Amino acid sequence: MTDAAHSSTTRPVTELTKELIARPSVTPLDEGCQTLMAERLAAIGFNIEPMVFEDTTNMWARRGNEGPVFCFAGHTDVVPAGDLSRWHTPPFEPTIIDGYLYGRGAADMKGSLAAMIVATERFVAKHPNHPGSIAFLITSDEEGPFINGTTRVIDTLEARNEKITWALVGEPSSTLKLGDVVKNGRRGSLTANLTVKGVQGHVAYPHLADNPIHKAAPFLAELSQTHWDNGNAFFPPTSMQIANINGGTGASNVIPGALEVMFNFRYSTEVTAEILIERVEALLTAHELDYDIHWTFNGLPFLTGEGPLLDATRHAIRQVTGYDTDPQTTGGTSDGRFIAPTGAKVLELGPVNATIHKVNECVKVDDLEQLALCYEVILEQLLC
Amino acid sequence: MTDAAHSSTTRPVTELTKELIARPSVTPLDEGCQTLMAERLAAIGFNIEPMVFEDTTNMWARRGNEGPVFCFAGHTDVVPAGDLSRWHTPPFEPTIIDGYLYGRGAADMKGSLAAMIVATERFVAKHPNHPGSIAFLITSDEEGPFINGTTRVIDTLEARNEKITWALVGEPSSTLKLGDVVKNGRRGSLTANLTVKGVQGHVAYPHLADNPIHKAAPFLAELSQTHWDNGNAFFPPTSMQIANINGGTGASNVIPGALEVMFNFRYSTEVTAEILIERVEALLTAHELDYDIHWTFNGLPFLTGEGPLLDATRHAIRQVTGYDTDPQTTGGTSDGRFIAPTGAKVLELGPVNATIHKVNECVKVDDLEQLALCYEVILEQLLC
Repeated sequence: MTDAAHSSTTRPVTELTKELIARPSVTPLDEGCQTLMAERLAAIGFNIEPMVFEDTTNMWARRGNEGPVFCFAGHTDVVPAGDLSRWHTPPFEPTIIDGYLYGRGAADMKGSLAAMIVATERFVAKHPNHPGSIAFLITSDEEGPFINGTTRVIDTLEARNEKITWALVGEPSSTLKLGDVVKNGRRGSLTANLTVKGVQGHVAYPHLADNPIHKAAPFLAELSQTHWDNGNAFFPPTSMQIANINGGTGASNVIPGALEVMFNFRYSTEVTAEILIERVEALLTAHELDYDIHWTFNGLPFLTGEGPLLDATRHAIRQVTGYDTDPQTTGGTSDGRFIAPTGAKVLELGPVNATIHKVNECVKVDDLEQLALCYEVILEQLLC
Repeated sequence: MTDAAHSSTTRPVTELTKELIARPSVTPLDEGCQTLMAERLAAIGFNIEPMVFEDTTNMWARRGNEGPVFCFAGHTDVVPAGDLSRWHTPPFEPTIIDGYLYGRGAADMKGSLAAMIVATERFVAKHPNHPGSIAFLITSDEEGPFINGTTRVIDTLEARNEKITWALVGEPSSTLKLGDVVKNGRRGSLTANLTVKGVQGHVAYPHLADNPIHKAAPFLAELSQTHWDNGNAFFPPTSMQIANINGGTGASNVIPGALEVMFNFRYSTEVTAEILIERVEALLTAHELDYDIHWTFNGLPFLTGEGPLLDATRHAIRQVTGYDTDPQTTGGTSDGRFIAPTGAKVLELGPVNATIHKVNECVKVDDLEQLALCYEVILEQLLC
């Protein structure tokens, strides 16, 4: 066995994670993270294809020309550091304390990116002539508006009919210990921007006005109490949440002319966006509201059921950690939703997510090294 | 009969109204309006007492030391001009077109102030030794927060036990023609600022959050459908209007931690503020809401029933216009609500209110002159 040059330290994943954290790549900045990754990948035979769209830095890297295509997917951008005074260590100065590496992006998801690189270096060193291809789909805009990131790389690949067979997304899926949970699908996300129309007026002359808040209140009560479905074996029940409501001029004596309501569905495969839209609009009609509604499709639900990718991942986690993983479809969206519609099987495996998007974000150093071992076993399972 | 010097033109009220409109006294500015009025009043024997509180210019002027005290009440401030491009004439350049005087404040209420001055000049010229007292209570903050205006003048008078017997407020009470409506009372006004508390969270993890909009919706539906009372012979039924509602961070994926609702009651003498508060808080409790509520007492209801002031006003309008007036208690609040609690009888009579607070505010020139005649007859009825 010949170790790749960069894997010669005792904690190669941790070392690379530190190099990435030191680059303050707040969305949509990349700050050289992808260049660092590209150098490592080019050194082991990857073809590097930068894809810059507007303010977003993306990279498509591939080793091999044949199928099947195993793709690591992830993002170099991080959310802002937040209140600096509440960080115990500077967010962009990676610091190890008591076995934990602290810094913005440590868990979401520079640790995963480093684990992917190290795992791939080791795998290629052992199997320089592996079948199929290994790819990396990396963006600098997963935490932001996700307009010029993964979705545009996917568009580019689709346009030239370049397909991903399996995508492993490095999002921090674990809850209590490394690999206890993987995400083998995600709920759909659908957002409504509703305007209920009334007639503005003075509160002293209510007969000359028509208060849209009064008109909408019974509808909102019924909307928030509606049972949408029971979910199924893979998905929890569909959930609707009113995220924003705004009406009024600020004055106490003006009846507003309109009420704005934004609500979001996280939905299972037991319903479709079309069914939800139909049910909401039927409710609006039943309440005799005068309204405008604009629907935004944030992502279709997807599911990676039993098959080679889920099998390989289960096997890897069992082999590396000694326990079984729990495939779930709960939680927020990830860029997996842009990859799955191409027909790719998508799965998410990354470190413990307890501190992501918070101050003092951290990851266990041992977990980083174990994560690379998991990734390497998955490669072995699928491409040997 | 000896006319006062300034009443020598054929349209003395219109001339003085123009002088007042030319002073751009947007709340809380007075821009010399009260000085102009004070000069006219001092010339006919009034004692002038300026009362400046913070940013607000007020004036108490009185002629005579005995009771009963008849008081003209009003304000020199005006609401902002709004969209200048929609005015056909500059708002602070009084302009007469086809028998109407245009300008900000023409109807609300510089025309009334001018009519009060001219009527008083004429009355004093005829009755220099009238019984009782004539007074003017003038503020520059009726359209604004009304903190340092009429209410503080009243406090000052109360502190020295100086009482008003009858107050005639110059608010534009008329609807279709001069004097068709007078206001002989006003509903109470009570405002609630309600915060419904929940637990903030991510829409993907609703079980970890508690959506205050969902919790409040059934309460708001019931609140807006509640019947409060039937009103009575003098007052329309109590009305509640939700004026403002705000919740949410703006993002579509965050369940807000709190919902803010502002609602306002205009209430009859069939209920009290205490009863309304009790009923609302019982409803909040019945809906098991976690809430904070802050109540603001904007004004108690008051009523000026049959008696000398209403009689004198009816008589004056009948004599000057030839038709009968209709005493009403509907509509918005006025500074009358601060005067009535002292025991004074309060009545509002002013020009047609169709254009107040709008662009191209205007008043009929003939109405201004007739209004002064009405005011003069009222003085004759009460102080001769």
